[in-house]
Amino acid sequence: MGKSNLLYEGKAKRLFETEDPQVLRVVYLDQATALNGVRKDMIQGKAELNNQITAIIFEYFNQKGLLNHFIKKISKDEQLVESLKIIPLEVVIRNVSAGSFSKRLSISEGQQLEFPILEFYYKDDHLDDPMINDDHVKFLKIATEEEIATIKHEAHKVNRVLLDLFKQIGIRLIDFKIEFGRRPDGTILLADEITPDTCRLWDEKTSSHLDKDVYRKNLGEIVPVYQEVLDRLKQKFN
Amino acid sequence: MGKSNLLYEGKAKRLFETEDPQVLRVVYLDQATALNGVRKDMIQGKAELNNQITAIIFEYFNQKGLLNHFIKKISKDEQLVESLKIIPLEVVIRNVSAGSFSKRLSISEGQQLEFPILEFYYKDDHLDDPMINDDHVKFLKIATEEEIATIKHEAHKVNRVLLDLFKQIGIRLIDFKIEFGRRPDGTILLADEITPDTCRLWDEKTSSHLDKDVYRKNLGEIVPVYQEVLDRLKQKFN
Repeated sequence: MGKSNLLYEGKAKRLFETEDPQVLRVVYLDQATALNGVRKDMIQGKAELNNQITAIIFEYFNQKGLLNHFIKKISKDEQLVESLKIIPLEVVIRNVSAGSFSKRLSISEGQQLEFPILEFYYKDDHLDDPMINDDHVKFLKIATEEEIATIKHEAHKVNRVLLDLFKQIGIRLIDFKIEFGRRPDGTILLADEITPDTCRLWDEKTSSHLDKDVYRKNLGEIVPVYQEVLDRLKQKFN
Repeated sequence: MGKSNLLYEGKAKRLFETEDPQVLRVVYLDQATALNGVRKDMIQGKAELNNQITAIIFEYFNQKGLLNHFIKKISKDEQLVESLKIIPLEVVIRNVSAGSFSKRLSISEGQQLEFPILEFYYKDDHLDDPMINDDHVKFLKIATEEEIATIKHEAHKVNRVLLDLFKQIGIRLIDFKIEFGRRPDGTILLADEITPDTCRLWDEKTSSHLDKDVYRKNLGEIVPVYQEVLDRLKQKFN
């Protein structure tokens, strides 16, 4: 019996089969990428930090009744998750203008939005993850009209829970990207990860970046910054 | 008393005030542009053709109960329209893949779509008319949720009427762009123009372009092609 099969290699983690067909093993990687993978660096310690951060957040979600694929953390850089068929959609929610939203509409970064804005991006490296609308989602058979409504509803719920959680630890949730997957019965469940790789997090007092923008914008080392997020989460939960 | 004031100069027409504050005079221009105005050419005869084509189509819409801003054609290159506050949204409906849709999703041109796909673009030359979604439309205060529903509903109605009309004259309606405006009482009305500048029209038999793509793609002279569209429309209505 060999070690389990690699199912998928992403930019920041690998997914392996386990003996249980309903369970996957996620291995976080000490790797950071930007510009859709054009820039790539090894960053020692990042894997452990993201594994811990996403585990804490997904466990908190479970307490709050926000169903997701997380089962348990099994080592410093590994966790078990439910095996889902991932929906190829990057679901972005924005509370404050930043990044591509600021560029697209020429709105300065840091502007509080009157309501959370949801965007869909088609997860396709080859196409550079283009922004798409609901009609495109249906056309591409990514999701039905009903499923789109479910995804939007769940994403806004995630936003409310995350906003509140981060506020408690002095962090402003600017925006984030999540992904969903389907169980064999069609149930749609939150999947992937919630980490400083996938969220924009600004310190409430200093507005300093506590997220991957530190890497994207060459603002310094990301490990101490991710560590700061983890420490604050641990302080709240321990 | 001077001649009426110029209110707006677009890429293919000028809008003037008239003595009646509720009425504007549109003057079509012998001008074609591409690449958001970077390329620009004088094309003698284009103004008259577009003025006639859009007049025939808007009159047909009025017969079909599809309300729009058109009042009447007053000369070869001029028409009167109702004065509306234009909503800065390019509403695109696609029946067949082409143009930016094909590029965005890497779908070959000419593929029949299972259902008409609607897209919104923010009319802003400075931003290069970016594609936006419903949340962006609301955020930018372009339209409310209810108005978005009205605009989508009306746009699909326009599509059904146009598909049928063009089919009767041997033309396949690939896609088109329309704009809407508001009356002082808030009523939303179809505005702008419907011409080979704003529609992709392919001959049903030969699939040759009967639209501005002839100019965009340097496929030949556009005047004979626009004349062909006008001739077929006249044949149907006279």
